[in-house]
Amino acid sequence: MAGETLALKDIWLAKNRIAQYVPKSPLIYSPALSKIADAPVHLKLENMNPSGSFKIRGAANKILSLSDAEKRKGITTFSTGNFGVSVAYMAKKLGIQAKICISNRVPGGKVEALQNSGADVEIYGESQDEAEARSYELEKRDGLTVIHPFDDPHIIAGQGTIGLELFEDLPEVDTVLGGLSGGGLHSGLGIALKETNPDIRLIGLSTRQGAAMYESIQAGKPIQIDENDTLADSLLGGIGLQNQYTFTLVQKYVNELLLMDEQEFADGMAFMLDKHKMIIEGAAASGIGALLHEKVKPGSQVAAIVTGCSVDTDVILKIMQENKNA
Amino acid sequence: MAGETLALKDIWLAKNRIAQYVPKSPLIYSPALSKIADAPVHLKLENMNPSGSFKIRGAANKILSLSDAEKRKGITTFSTGNFGVSVAYMAKKLGIQAKICISNRVPGGKVEALQNSGADVEIYGESQDEAEARSYELEKRDGLTVIHPFDDPHIIAGQGTIGLELFEDLPEVDTVLGGLSGGGLHSGLGIALKETNPDIRLIGLSTRQGAAMYESIQAGKPIQIDENDTLADSLLGGIGLQNQYTFTLVQKYVNELLLMDEQEFADGMAFMLDKHKMIIEGAAASGIGALLHEKVKPGSQVAAIVTGCSVDTDVILKIMQENKNA
Repeated sequence: MAGETLALKDIWLAKNRIAQYVPKSPLIYSPALSKIADAPVHLKLENMNPSGSFKIRGAANKILSLSDAEKRKGITTFSTGNFGVSVAYMAKKLGIQAKICISNRVPGGKVEALQNSGADVEIYGESQDEAEARSYELEKRDGLTVIHPFDDPHIIAGQGTIGLELFEDLPEVDTVLGGLSGGGLHSGLGIALKETNPDIRLIGLSTRQGAAMYESIQAGKPIQIDENDTLADSLLGGIGLQNQYTFTLVQKYVNELLLMDEQEFADGMAFMLDKHKMIIEGAAASGIGALLHEKVKPGSQVAAIVTGCSVDTDVILKIMQENKNA
Repeated sequence: MAGETLALKDIWLAKNRIAQYVPKSPLIYSPALSKIADAPVHLKLENMNPSGSFKIRGAANKILSLSDAEKRKGITTFSTGNFGVSVAYMAKKLGIQAKICISNRVPGGKVEALQNSGADVEIYGESQDEAEARSYELEKRDGLTVIHPFDDPHIIAGQGTIGLELFEDLPEVDTVLGGLSGGGLHSGLGIALKETNPDIRLIGLSTRQGAAMYESIQAGKPIQIDENDTLADSLLGGIGLQNQYTFTLVQKYVNELLLMDEQEFADGMAFMLDKHKMIIEGAAASGIGALLHEKVKPGSQVAAIVTGCSVDTDVILKIMQENKNA
């Protein structure tokens, strides 16, 4: 399976491969958001997945595709959190050794979640890039297989299974929104959605505090950018100057790329708490926040991908209190 | 369909009747609770239902069974909240007039939820009993059909559909826990679960602040009791001195009846927030609280019914802060 030849078929293969480990996630209708957007809005609840995010899909597809020799030697990855948790979760299920390298920028709740998932965590360096370098060092030194969080055909195909599930539940979907970071999600969604219905509008929402894919698309090539703290910390991280797959796929498939402000993430999180009684992380609230702030024109059937629920209690308490006083 | 002859068949009829309006609710495995209980624990997420609680099942089954003439004249009910919201939701879907009578003991968030669901709300009297009397007055005066929240064969059959869904996802289930109030849920579960597998242990959890069914079962007949404020306000309310169905069915089917303390509800709510990132009401946390406090001996495959998510933000904030300081 090469990136250039990734096809709908690969998404179906992924769906079949991960079925035992990743149950279909719920798609719920949001009356309150539909009213505000003046169009039917549905929420794809990836926060309900076993590992708490959509990343389990790609991680499962990748790890289940490894050879027996690779599985025996063990794996390593670098991650802002959710991908690491998903790799650790799958590794534990399959009895594979997994070393997760993360930078010291990753919030405490995520580090704890990683450790609780049974992962062997190594905190290394100041940035995603340094954590990444550490993983490749371990590959060289100990023969571990590096599992790339997004720029890998199996990861992309796994994330694309969300698109097949959307057609199962809402075949008339015409607008799909989600947080855009490394581009694994949007690459997979692009193939699944737009090779089935080219008229679907796929929208990528990045954080203004560090939008590597957005800036790279503007520049016409992968570039490096500075990062700042954000509620949507899952959207931070570079796309890699040697990006092989996701840059091209995002360029090909994503109709609109938008930058989100902190208040928009916060409002999306508060909406989800208030109206749907669920705690979600900032990145996961991007589609909801964009609709609440009328940043996107909703189509006739909208699906927002609610990507995960990894967030510290302190952040939630603050948002609830501010929302209460608003 | 008479209460005495309610059979598994009636639950299947209900399942078929409500399918269009009530999607199957998720059953998720809880790693954290399983570890504490030392047995596999699954959570049946009725809080994910369209109206935010399991009550939609009975309400849908009852209202869809009314004659055209009855539908034209309109309906009325009395409710601590969730049942009223469910009736209002279904009435709106079907274009039926619905008057919801509630007492002034019902918390603000629930009143607002009723009004948001488009119901015609009447706040009347100090207790569930007075609100009930008002509904029967409207029946007499205006020809509305009273929809009883629990003591009705169609309501019982509707709630029982949870049992069929449990067998679909977890046929080996041997212990089922849920909040017990008027007994509609446990009557329906009793038929669905124990007519399929008599060895299943069905456990009813009531609030010590007002346990009408518990006290009635102890007394051997329906009795009236005093009520106090509780985190599990959905479990308050009498069972009716003229109870026709649920008293007998609970007597027949429920293996264990237990009284829950406030801290147990609070701990169940905090657990759900912390480990599963969901906001649920006190009553819905009863099964989780009972397992956390080792009030019940878990079997080999446990399912706790998470019944609903109607709770004020202030209550959640308080629980989060106390949990943080604990």
